[in-house]
Amino acid sequence: MRRAGPVLAIDIGGTKFAAGLVEPGGRLANVATAQTPRELDAEQLWRTLDALLSRVLEEARVHGEAGIAGVGCGCGGPMTWPEGKVSPLNIAAWRAFPLRERLQRRFPDLPVRIHNDAICVAVGEHWRGAGRGRSDMLGMVVSTGVGGGLVLDGRLVNGATGNAGHIGHVVVDPDGPPCVCGGRGCLEAIARGPALAAWAQARGWRADQPEVTAKDLADEAAQGHPLGIAALRRAGNALGIAIASVTHMCDLQVVAVGGGLAQAGALLFDPLEEALRTHIGLDFAADVQVVPTALGQGAGLVGAAALLLAEDRYWPQGA
Amino acid sequence: MRRAGPVLAIDIGGTKFAAGLVEPGGRLANVATAQTPRELDAEQLWRTLDALLSRVLEEARVHGEAGIAGVGCGCGGPMTWPEGKVSPLNIAAWRAFPLRERLQRRFPDLPVRIHNDAICVAVGEHWRGAGRGRSDMLGMVVSTGVGGGLVLDGRLVNGATGNAGHIGHVVVDPDGPPCVCGGRGCLEAIARGPALAAWAQARGWRADQPEVTAKDLADEAAQGHPLGIAALRRAGNALGIAIASVTHMCDLQVVAVGGGLAQAGALLFDPLEEALRTHIGLDFAADVQVVPTALGQGAGLVGAAALLLAEDRYWPQGA
Repeated sequence: MRRAGPVLAIDIGGTKFAAGLVEPGGRLANVATAQTPRELDAEQLWRTLDALLSRVLEEARVHGEAGIAGVGCGCGGPMTWPEGKVSPLNIAAWRAFPLRERLQRRFPDLPVRIHNDAICVAVGEHWRGAGRGRSDMLGMVVSTGVGGGLVLDGRLVNGATGNAGHIGHVVVDPDGPPCVCGGRGCLEAIARGPALAAWAQARGWRADQPEVTAKDLADEAAQGHPLGIAALRRAGNALGIAIASVTHMCDLQVVAVGGGLAQAGALLFDPLEEALRTHIGLDFAADVQVVPTALGQGAGLVGAAALLLAEDRYWPQGA
Repeated sequence: MRRAGPVLAIDIGGTKFAAGLVEPGGRLANVATAQTPRELDAEQLWRTLDALLSRVLEEARVHGEAGIAGVGCGCGGPMTWPEGKVSPLNIAAWRAFPLRERLQRRFPDLPVRIHNDAICVAVGEHWRGAGRGRSDMLGMVVSTGVGGGLVLDGRLVNGATGNAGHIGHVVVDPDGPPCVCGGRGCLEAIARGPALAAWAQARGWRADQPEVTAKDLADEAAQGHPLGIAALRRAGNALGIAIASVTHMCDLQVVAVGGGLAQAGALLFDPLEEALRTHIGLDFAADVQVVPTALGQGAGLVGAAALLLAEDRYWPQGA
């Protein structure tokens, strides 16, 4: 990427789209969002995104393509990568939707890049957040799902199909519950928000209220509700086991944990740390630090922009 | 590395040293070995190695340093890396022994490089063995310990301290046996040879014979001994769980399994494959292939040489 100027960054989530401009130094500005009602079809969703991008560029007084250096996009998986045909789990209307191609047609003279949304969070945190200056880190999002991205030897790891970083499907309990992925005992099957809420409900917490969420549970845990505390403890334990495995396997310095559930603070991080210390044995792994993400909501946008602004570390040549 | 000619490759094991010459294309020749009796002290061990290297060079009619392009060495961990101060678990006489520095003094005009022995096996298998032509693989050694090395996006992953690849300390049973590393339920605590033999002995197999090994157990399993079969099944199951976790985490195409225990064949690989298929859920991971290593005993030597002969993929600039 050779043009100067900010990058237009996009974050495609299950309930909303976000976009903004990221300066070459990493500063995020002009953020705008749009809700994505479930009734919209594929083209209506695209028009919603298209209008959002126009709004961001207009409000920033960027006219045409000349004022920006490129477009970076994070989107929920799965997707084919780097082609960017996306089928986000939480956006039923997009199945094999050619998002990278559509963005490229919208911005024909600019480089357009796309990656998994959790990978963008990890990249953002490595570039300008909790992993800044470290060579080896894992960035995680613990929310409706559990995702992540790996930076090793100073570069983003993509893996054979662009899917490296799937810590949600590291096995933490071989005889544990079945996972939506088809496996068994995955971290995500235990630590995703809906699994926490279901676990507590099966034990009597608000058993008759189907609409309650892990956020409600975490709020009650913060007020001392024993089932809420136990549910967060179970999730933290599973996270600690998975992080111990990956730290041994990948020789990490830092793990940055974000996403809605990370807001639970010590109720999640204390049992996480306890399990981590039980399962980390090797000397080289003992110094790993598990910390909350530093960039908050903007991490995904900053990371999507870094696919272009720091391409030597976060984007493979020619992809 | 710019000189032409073969590389002098060294493999430092617990009971013997091996050395040979590896041609730029990967052909291994002039292999010689020396036993390493336990009574030797640090300097005697060094002289044993020094004599072995002289013998290899002499038999190959290489005089002085002019005939070789460099020196590559694999050695049991732990070590500081890339400095190469080694403290191999099975060589009590070497504790923080400056092996890379001593080799550099022995060959002052040549590049000298060193890495963990299991990493050298993985590199050898990626360069010229079971992982040839693939971008993302794990190479494993299942023997007295369980070690490995990771090649991702076409390059060897070193991690923060050169210790990436430690699959032996991925957690496969959080409530499982304590591991020599200080953790609990690690793959190595279940699948290393001595753990297999101990597990079978605790259940009555040759209970009064302290000197029996996992090889004896595997031999009897091949003849139908139910405890031997059960022990290999338990190890295979643990291997399958760990490989599923790492395949999800790192988006691997191929896993090459070597080491003494891999000789057990289907008795190990069938339960491994069964557990792998139980725990692999995500589409991108379904095509992973688990295969035996292809290079046999020479893999570590070939990989040690590749640290120089294919340095763009297997050695970081300036290390």
